[in-house]
Amino acid sequence: MEQRRLRIGVAGLGRAFSLMLPTFLQDPRVQLVAACDPREEARQQFAADFGARTYADVLDLAGDPDVEVIYVASPHQFHAQHTEIAAANGKHVLVEKPMALNAADCDRMIAACRAANVHLIVGHCHSFDTPYLRTRELIRSGDFGAVKMIQAFNYTDYLYRPRRPEELMTAEGGGAVFSQAAHQVDIVRMLAGSRATRLRASVGRWDSKRPTEGAYSALIWFENGAYASLSYSGYGHFNSDEWMGWIGEMGDHANPDAYGGARRRLATLSSSNDEAQLKAAGTYGGAAYKPPSTAADEPTRCHQHFGPVIVACEHADLRPLPDSIIVYGDQQRETLPLSRPTVPRGEVIDELYEAVIAGQAPLHDGKWAKGTLEICIAILKSSETGKDVAL
Amino acid sequence: MEQRRLRIGVAGLGRAFSLMLPTFLQDPRVQLVAACDPREEARQQFAADFGARTYADVLDLAGDPDVEVIYVASPHQFHAQHTEIAAANGKHVLVEKPMALNAADCDRMIAACRAANVHLIVGHCHSFDTPYLRTRELIRSGDFGAVKMIQAFNYTDYLYRPRRPEELMTAEGGGAVFSQAAHQVDIVRMLAGSRATRLRASVGRWDSKRPTEGAYSALIWFENGAYASLSYSGYGHFNSDEWMGWIGEMGDHANPDAYGGARRRLATLSSSNDEAQLKAAGTYGGAAYKPPSTAADEPTRCHQHFGPVIVACEHADLRPLPDSIIVYGDQQRETLPLSRPTVPRGEVIDELYEAVIAGQAPLHDGKWAKGTLEICIAILKSSETGKDVAL
Repeated sequence: MEQRRLRIGVAGLGRAFSLMLPTFLQDPRVQLVAACDPREEARQQFAADFGARTYADVLDLAGDPDVEVIYVASPHQFHAQHTEIAAANGKHVLVEKPMALNAADCDRMIAACRAANVHLIVGHCHSFDTPYLRTRELIRSGDFGAVKMIQAFNYTDYLYRPRRPEELMTAEGGGAVFSQAAHQVDIVRMLAGSRATRLRASVGRWDSKRPTEGAYSALIWFENGAYASLSYSGYGHFNSDEWMGWIGEMGDHANPDAYGGARRRLATLSSSNDEAQLKAAGTYGGAAYKPPSTAADEPTRCHQHFGPVIVACEHADLRPLPDSIIVYGDQQRETLPLSRPTVPRGEVIDELYEAVIAGQAPLHDGKWAKGTLEICIAILKSSETGKDVAL
Repeated sequence: MEQRRLRIGVAGLGRAFSLMLPTFLQDPRVQLVAACDPREEARQQFAADFGARTYADVLDLAGDPDVEVIYVASPHQFHAQHTEIAAANGKHVLVEKPMALNAADCDRMIAACRAANVHLIVGHCHSFDTPYLRTRELIRSGDFGAVKMIQAFNYTDYLYRPRRPEELMTAEGGGAVFSQAAHQVDIVRMLAGSRATRLRASVGRWDSKRPTEGAYSALIWFENGAYASLSYSGYGHFNSDEWMGWIGEMGDHANPDAYGGARRRLATLSSSNDEAQLKAAGTYGGAAYKPPSTAADEPTRCHQHFGPVIVACEHADLRPLPDSIIVYGDQQRETLPLSRPTVPRGEVIDELYEAVIAGQAPLHDGKWAKGTLEICIAILKSSETGKDVAL
């Protein structure tokens, strides 16, 4: 019996959409039926690729009676408004991380979806990645005792990828804390399995040409007695994929010898305008846009990840990797292999589908994601005030 | 022209001494001329090995007119007293880390050595290791801009190595903070190149049978604006030598397949008394003691280390490794090879010899080491009070 396909309308055909497109293309449980974007070339490409309706305005997309779910993939600062519009029109919402830029917006989004009796799921976020979800299950089995200490660590070239100007302005939701801690904090909360109660952090902004957070370190304490140490650098030097078997964030094979590409490419640009144009050109509908490879092109693709994570439980350290989980137990070390992903980020559709079709409450709902955003904001606040932030 | 040899007397022929013995045996700048230890079998072995005088009491060692330097390698709680005795007898002092168990003892040791006009050097500590010293020089060259963020990380089986009971009691100087943070903090301070001003930390004690700190995480802020994130686990699960090319702490080749040995060996013992006896048997003079291998036995020996460290400067991440330093620069990645060590821990003798013979002020003097101890104590205090500690 064929599964019913969820009919998705996309609000925003930018970078987030292109990263989710392989999922939408390959997962038989969903189909793209409409989209909105202010850029005409993106709408044209969408219409051509999917034979689907396109709109310049999110209000028109939300009014499309064929759309069941709106995937809100607009720039961060529009997430709240677009979610409210979707809910007001009775559409379920899948909204990209970060959910919003402040807790009040999260509350509005949660209230709007509750009032409309629609589901609100926040993602993709790397906490959906199978290695972390499976590690969470292992922890919850109780076989390894309580979680005590989590180490999460990621060194990338995040800050030197092509950006629009507002992506380099913290007040508009730019920078590594809003964009990258959103992943790392979510993973750590999920693995800790308990409410975060306190936080102490420091952020790094050390390139005056890109004057937002490029790095941070944080200590987070949890109600169950666990604590976590998180560190991130997006300054494009050391690459911690080395400690993930040279598998990149997207589950692809990283080339250890391709050093410094992001910085080198950026150095060829003469202005922030050129940079924004380069980003636009590589985005869906742009002149330099490349469609995603298909599963068949990537027979050795692994799970996505967000850097090395080690969960110290009383009787084992658990280490999620792109193709396995290593259990470092009291007596022995064991590698638990993971099946290769059939669809990249299929975990997002798992949760969305189960919610909409079977009414199963999602893990990554609005309340959950608000908790992550509050921690991200607390990272900024703790660094600024030089004190713990109680959560 | 042959170098003059420093005449060293050893106070305490225990574990610390056996780890320094390869250095004393192989470095032509020193000779062991006397020792004291309460254990008769250790004294007998020393007399046989070196044809040298032995004493049961440190006072007698300090009175030996042939001794120029006393290497204080007694248990932590005796460091202060034995240093004072050495200084009062006009001997230079090389004292093992941790320097002492509180700041007041450090002050007494510093004052005693100053009054006697003798040098006080604290070590061995892994901050003497060539990869860190060389990284410090690279930073001080200014070629990479200011230090901004340091990550130091180490996962070992520290807590499950055979111990005397007091080594598992924090109040007596036991546990990972006094014994292991003493290394990691010293390295981080040296690389930061600035005074530590604040600290926030959390410690882990999660094996009730070994009721001292087995783990910690800390954030440390420095006057020059840098911050550091330190994490340590000695719970014998994940082994971070994996991220050091499978080179162990002592510069030897670690066997990735020898998992869980420390815990397994400990599980065969039925009491803390058996454990202390096992430790004693493997120590110098004990029935199961094995003499150190010589340099010729270990042609591929690398430098010692204390786990992965990444120093993020404005224009490069620097990564000290046992055989090289990797410089991850803005434009390129470069591996700077290090010469193999001719004598393990020869860096300690470099500093001691230069101080005693040439009068050059040592880097690892009493004031320096007191600063590290204060941070270790602050790690315990911050975890207990749940607050920042101003330094």
